[in-house]
Parts: sequence; C-alpha cells; structure tokens
Amino acid sequence: MGRFDFVENEKLKNQLDFIIECDKAKNIFRRTVLTDCSRRENDAEHSWHLAVCAMTLFEYAPDGADLGKTVQMVTVHDLVEIYAGDTFAYDEQGKATKAARENEAADRLFGMLGEQGEYFRSLWNEFEECGTPTALYARALDCLQPLLHNYITDGHTWRGNHITTQMVLNRNAACRKAMPEVWKIVERIVEDSHKKGLLE
Amino acid sequence: MGRFDFVENEKLKNQLDFIIECDKAKNIFRRTVLTDCSRRENDAEHSWHLAVCAMTLFEYAPDGADLGKTVQMVTVHDLVEIYAGDTFAYDEQGKATKAARENEAADRLFGMLGEQGEYFRSLWNEFEECGTPTALYARALDCLQPLLHNYITDGHTWRGNHITTQMVLNRNAACRKAMPEVWKIVERIVEDSHKKGLLE
Repeated sequence: MGRFDFVENEKLKNQLDFIIECDKAKNIFRRTVLTDCSRRENDAEHSWHLAVCAMTLFEYAPDGADLGKTVQMVTVHDLVEIYAGDTFAYDEQGKATKAARENEAADRLFGMLGEQGEYFRSLWNEFEECGTPTALYARALDCLQPLLHNYITDGHTWRGNHITTQMVLNRNAACRKAMPEVWKIVERIVEDSHKKGLLE
Repeated sequence: MGRFDFVENEKLKNQLDFIIECDKAKNIFRRTVLTDCSRRENDAEHSWHLAVCAMTLFEYAPDGADLGKTVQMVTVHDLVEIYAGDTFAYDEQGKATKAARENEAADRLFGMLGEQGEYFRSLWNEFEECGTPTALYARALDCLQPLLHNYITDGHTWRGNHITTQMVLNRNAACRKAMPEVWKIVERIVEDSHKKGLLE
C-alpha cells in the first residue's frame, strides 16, 4: 500500500493498490491439495481452476447462465478470504461466524475501489445468494472442483475428518440442481469413494 | 489420466480429464515472485491475477474489447506451458523455439477436448496474434502485472539479469497502444526504477 502515491489519477492509484492487495489470495491456503498431493492449493489457484471448469463444462450449465459473467464471478468469489480466511466446507463452528467475517472483509477490500467496488461486491453477493442461473453454476463448480481433487487424491481432505457420503452429497446440492448430467458422475464418485473407504 | 474411465459419456470423461490435466499449471513457476517476495508465482496464480486486473482496469481498455472474453482469454493464455514450460520474457534464445514448442503443446492439450478444444485454441491463437482489441488488452495486462510485481519487489527479476529501461518499455508496447492512461504510469515506474538502480 502507498507504493503508487506518485499516481495523480486517484482512481487509478486505488485500482493499482487493489490489484496488489489481491496478490495476498495466493497465500490463502485451502484444505484441498493439488492432484499430485505435493501441497495445499491456494485461493488464487482454486479460483483460476474454477474459471477453467466454467469454460469446459458450460454445455451442462443451467439455462440462462452467462459464461463471461460466471468466469468473472469465480475470479472474485473467494477474495474476501484475504481478510476473513478460508473456512473448511465441513467446519460447522467456522461457518457460524463466516457471513459476518466475510461481510466485513468485503467492505474493507471492495471499499478500496470506491463506487467501482460495488460491481465486485454485487458479483460476490450474487454468488453468495445463489439465486441466479449464473450463481448456481458457479456454486456447483465451486463444490465440484474440490470433489474431483479429493477423488483423485484418494480422499485427502475427507480421510481423518469423519466426512460421510451424505455430507458430500449435501455439499454438492447445487450441482444436482445446476448440472443433472454432471450430478450422475458426482453420485458415482461418492459411491466409489465410499466403497474404497475414503468416505464414511 | 484414466481416473474417470467409469464415465459413460465419452465427451464428459474427456472434459474431466482435461480439468485435472490443467491442475499442472499450478506447478509451472514463473520468474516473477509474489509481492511479499516469499516465492515464485505459478501460471495458475498469474492467470487468475490477470483476470482480476482485467476486471479492475476495464475502463482503460481499448474500444471494442470484451470483458467476459478477456477474462476467458487470460484464463487459458498460458495453459500450453503445462507441456512447453515458461519462457522468460527476456530470454531471446528460449523465444526462438517458443512458438514451435507451444504449438505442439496446444495440439496435445486442447486436442484432449476434441472439437470443443478449437474454442480454447482460438482464444489462445487470438491472444498470440494480438490483432483484436480484446487480445491487445489481454496482452497489455500480461505485461503490466509482472511490471507491477517487479516494481513492488524492488526489481526482483530485473536485477542481475541486465534488464534495461528500453527492454521493459519495449516489452510493454501493448500497454502503450491499449491503455494510454495506464501507459503514463508504466513510464513513471520505469523511470523511478532506473533512478533506484533496479533497471540498467
């Protein structure tokens, strides 16, 4: 912060500061590991991977979903974790305070951009509320990508955390609604993972 | 590969394999370091950061640039490096073989998706050819983001590599053409970096 004080255009100065602040997402590590199990994945990588998923699986997206908007939405969907931290999907205690922590973080981070920040915030709000085809698609991908990683890594974040098949199916409810064709695969993955003892 | 053999829908199976293959971009490390200098940045993080830049700086983009398409383009622009590796921006020897290596990589990677791969490949081609407002904007961001990182990290990848002000200005030619308002900042950054001895 303050590295661009020489920029006379105040708006552009704030935008550059925001871009640099967002770099911190590369140090917010999630529970999910890379498919080679070498290390945990961070928010920047996860968000980018969702953008790849959105482009690859768009033919299965719900009617009315907008691809360009989905890619923007997944790009910003976890930015608030720069201040609020990552909350494990199955951490019920953490989830109780998640909304308050993330709202405060959104005020602080998107507030850096003044009026323009409202666009970022509205995308994030739409994702959180999950009431549009685009948000539903983005949410489905946000659950599917870690599911694929977990399956490939023999249940790396499931094992030892008492995760059950029902918890994973519930977690992926958006996929059932958003992408019935892909949901069939989710069910097969969960079934197979249970057989292999990766899920309780 | 081959982890989704149970999927009867052949196209979807290939799409899931492609998504998992793309995970490898998280292990392709660039010369640029994170702004806290803790480690080198990888292609997934860099691509995601460009998407954030695209959304943040869109008001300075050239007429006719499409934001949704830009974000998709930057998401896939470095995917070929999964097979072709990263080529340092100022490595003239590496650049001589870059096109051939990357074309082969594009055949292999996007070929995983059959006909759908042509969409990914056309986005990548458009970026490489840099002949449209969207591609010009994406290219400008692809040079600006490392410039900002280098400036913030006191010339981390410039120092010791005999990088001159003229090399950096040439490297950022797309920014001059695409975003005149932002180009003024690039010139100030280069000038200041020279004064500080970060650039020759």
